[in-house]
Amino acid sequence: MNPSLARGLAYFLAGVLALAPAACTPPAPQPRQTVTIPDNEIDPAVWGKAYPEEYELWKKTEEPISARRSKYKTGMDSGPVTMDKLSHFPFMALLFNGWGFGIEYNEPRGHAYMVRDQLEIDSSRLGAGGVCLSCKSPYAPGLQKELGTDYYRKPFREVLAKIPEKNRDLGVACIDCHDHRDMGLRISRGFTLLEAFRAMGVDPGRLTRQEMRSAVCAQCHVTYNIPKDAEGQSVGLYFPWQKGNYGAITIEAIIAQIRSDPRVLEWKQAVTGFRMAFIRHPEYEFWTNQSTHFRAGASCADCHMPYTVVGVHKVSDHRVMSPVQADMKACKQCHAQSPQWLRDRVFSIQDRTVSILIRAGYQCATVAKLFETAHRARAEGKTIDAALYDRAKEFYEEAFYRTVFMGAENSVGFHNPPEGLRILGDAIAFGTRAEAYLRQALAKAGVEVPLKVDLEILKYVDQRGEKKLRFDPSLEFKDPFGLQDRFF
Amino acid sequence: MNPSLARGLAYFLAGVLALAPAACTPPAPQPRQTVTIPDNEIDPAVWGKAYPEEYELWKKTEEPISARRSKYKTGMDSGPVTMDKLSHFPFMALLFNGWGFGIEYNEPRGHAYMVRDQLEIDSSRLGAGGVCLSCKSPYAPGLQKELGTDYYRKPFREVLAKIPEKNRDLGVACIDCHDHRDMGLRISRGFTLLEAFRAMGVDPGRLTRQEMRSAVCAQCHVTYNIPKDAEGQSVGLYFPWQKGNYGAITIEAIIAQIRSDPRVLEWKQAVTGFRMAFIRHPEYEFWTNQSTHFRAGASCADCHMPYTVVGVHKVSDHRVMSPVQADMKACKQCHAQSPQWLRDRVFSIQDRTVSILIRAGYQCATVAKLFETAHRARAEGKTIDAALYDRAKEFYEEAFYRTVFMGAENSVGFHNPPEGLRILGDAIAFGTRAEAYLRQALAKAGVEVPLKVDLEILKYVDQRGEKKLRFDPSLEFKDPFGLQDRFF
Repeated sequence: MNPSLARGLAYFLAGVLALAPAACTPPAPQPRQTVTIPDNEIDPAVWGKAYPEEYELWKKTEEPISARRSKYKTGMDSGPVTMDKLSHFPFMALLFNGWGFGIEYNEPRGHAYMVRDQLEIDSSRLGAGGVCLSCKSPYAPGLQKELGTDYYRKPFREVLAKIPEKNRDLGVACIDCHDHRDMGLRISRGFTLLEAFRAMGVDPGRLTRQEMRSAVCAQCHVTYNIPKDAEGQSVGLYFPWQKGNYGAITIEAIIAQIRSDPRVLEWKQAVTGFRMAFIRHPEYEFWTNQSTHFRAGASCADCHMPYTVVGVHKVSDHRVMSPVQADMKACKQCHAQSPQWLRDRVFSIQDRTVSILIRAGYQCATVAKLFETAHRARAEGKTIDAALYDRAKEFYEEAFYRTVFMGAENSVGFHNPPEGLRILGDAIAFGTRAEAYLRQALAKAGVEVPLKVDLEILKYVDQRGEKKLRFDPSLEFKDPFGLQDRFF
Repeated sequence: MNPSLARGLAYFLAGVLALAPAACTPPAPQPRQTVTIPDNEIDPAVWGKAYPEEYELWKKTEEPISARRSKYKTGMDSGPVTMDKLSHFPFMALLFNGWGFGIEYNEPRGHAYMVRDQLEIDSSRLGAGGVCLSCKSPYAPGLQKELGTDYYRKPFREVLAKIPEKNRDLGVACIDCHDHRDMGLRISRGFTLLEAFRAMGVDPGRLTRQEMRSAVCAQCHVTYNIPKDAEGQSVGLYFPWQKGNYGAITIEAIIAQIRSDPRVLEWKQAVTGFRMAFIRHPEYEFWTNQSTHFRAGASCADCHMPYTVVGVHKVSDHRVMSPVQADMKACKQCHAQSPQWLRDRVFSIQDRTVSILIRAGYQCATVAKLFETAHRARAEGKTIDAALYDRAKEFYEEAFYRTVFMGAENSVGFHNPPEGLRILGDAIAFGTRAEAYLRQALAKAGVEVPLKVDLEILKYVDQRGEKKLRFDPSLEFKDPFGLQDRFF
């Protein structure tokens, strides 16, 4: 061989060998840069220096999903626009008429919007005061400690103003769920979740890491009640789990607690004039009540924050969204079927839940209108049978709370399908029996009630509040099984 | 080495080597003996010569399960004793009062008992005639062809007597599902199932083998109607699938068909005086209506006839039973969890279904008693509002058929959990609205109705029929969620 050719070839081969490791082997994960996060540091930008991948994903909770993948949960689709839940389910406008939820009630968007949405929503939704910050801001635990009862009671914007301006509309942040020293999971809401666990005899210190991967979500994705003083001012905040058990916080236990504490009758329903409590997004309660996924050992994070790869790091996806919106990626960790197959299963369950939810909702609305009729008749001097009336009221409340529970939980039944449909079946049972008692009582009083009660639904769902919010018929969810018109 | 010791050792080793193949390798599967099964041979003993393993398993359908493993399905526990379904669900005794099902209605036992149980049951259950043999005997297709309308109409025992005595109480046999030439699956019930498939536009010849592994079961595990002539004599038999589709034979389609054909109003409900149709064990309809297991490509045989090993043969288990009774063996083919875990899932679904079924059942019973009250009032000369009455009757029928559907399907909801609870939710919606209209109508007529209607349930469930069958309170299934007493 020509020496110079040989030398050239040798250089070439040496070059190939030198390049080979970079071209053929993936880069090895790098040890994380050590960044010290100061004690009590709230600003996510500081945490983000140590955990830039999680931080960037967390910031993405403000990005809408480009394509509509969900069938009934529309909040993530909308980006800058909020989706009107009262147009989705007009019966809610009637039932919640009398306070903020009946004026403006939107599908939840990404975590980034939790305070921003509060600043834009009809002001009636902030009536409870500073207490509304409890899940919305990482500053809440500090403010609650500092201000005591004033934290709950003082006007929302007044308490909000105590948060440094830069972080005022932050929403859930790293410190809400993580220990800054080792990124372990921690419960920051001692005054709500830890109290609720202790009331059930659960030692929060003994929860496993996998249990903690749900418990941190349970700081906010739960129902709660706001006790009021004699003047109607907020004086606290608690989860109504006192009569439940870990893994069995049933709707029956929640209703029993609510009905045992008149301080939590937070609002007056306009149509009936009844003081009522309320139920909010009971995700944790519903799902942990012996659902298949709970019993299989899954956690909230397994399905809503699946592991993903960013660069060379494997991190849990801090965008936090429905698996349906994320193209069923989380499901595929355990299930071998195609995304379309899995999605069809979800929709099949949700179709059935929505059908019965709509039935239960309009049933409650019908009863509310019959109470309105009964009250009008009484005002005109007619006598309404007290035994029938009282039992109807009791049953109406049972139906109402069940219906609100299922209307508020954010999976449209998927988190626990048979339990959801059981709850709704009982909602219909209680609600329709209440209608039966009222029809009987009204007939006894000589009041005619037609086969279908006129719900005057537009009166409630159209032209709502200071913004004169309109009913958008294109958003309404109709009964997928087409039976609705037989009843209402 | 001592020569004799060496020789002894050599013999010993030779013996070990000779034994080794038998001791260490499992015997190879033997080719099956060729036995010719004559055309149209019905006798299983002849088939059994070719397929002794399947034959022996088939014979075991007469053996009870020693330990009670199921929670709500008790028929396989009992062996020689039948389990009284009307004691399990006393509301059924009230609703079915007026014909055989209200007198004696037992939990199904193993396949071996299908004719034997008919010979022992209260004779009112055989009133429809020879038609009752259609699923009970492999001779049925031949008799139907031979006798024409007389097959349906003639007294049960008269048609039964045409079967050779030896095979008179045979129950389902090989020929009902198999081709004698190659053991392939075949549909023997052309006059029912094939007609029903064709009415939905399904070409039975195009069903896959896996679909056939369910279709052969669908020859009998379906609901059916028996049209009557003007004299009330049976003139046919059909499955009410005409308004359904393959994979979507919904309860709505079934009810629409039933209500469109007055010939199938087979009986008169005693409490209301209404002529009614009936719904029987709609396993195939319920399960194929988009259940998860159906959509996952399972067949009836996958879960109820799992593969098993008999000697050196792998055969499907012809004992045919609930996977729960068989210690979840079939489930473990696909599911990795423990039998106890899987069983708990089944029971969790069944508890919820039973709770709402009981609610729906007593709701129908309540409405029936209110119709009885209304009829009595009318007989006394009082006026019952016609519009309220008519709508109540329409809704009552909708509720009744849904409740009977879910009370008759043999999985207590498991075959299709959300669909079952949807059906029951609507049953309660229709049934309780019917109660509402009747309470209103009765109040208008000046008739007092108490908060809880007295169902006089013992009048119906105790001392039934020629055998004076007693209510057994120890068998009654109570609402697992404890809400029943609030309503009834």
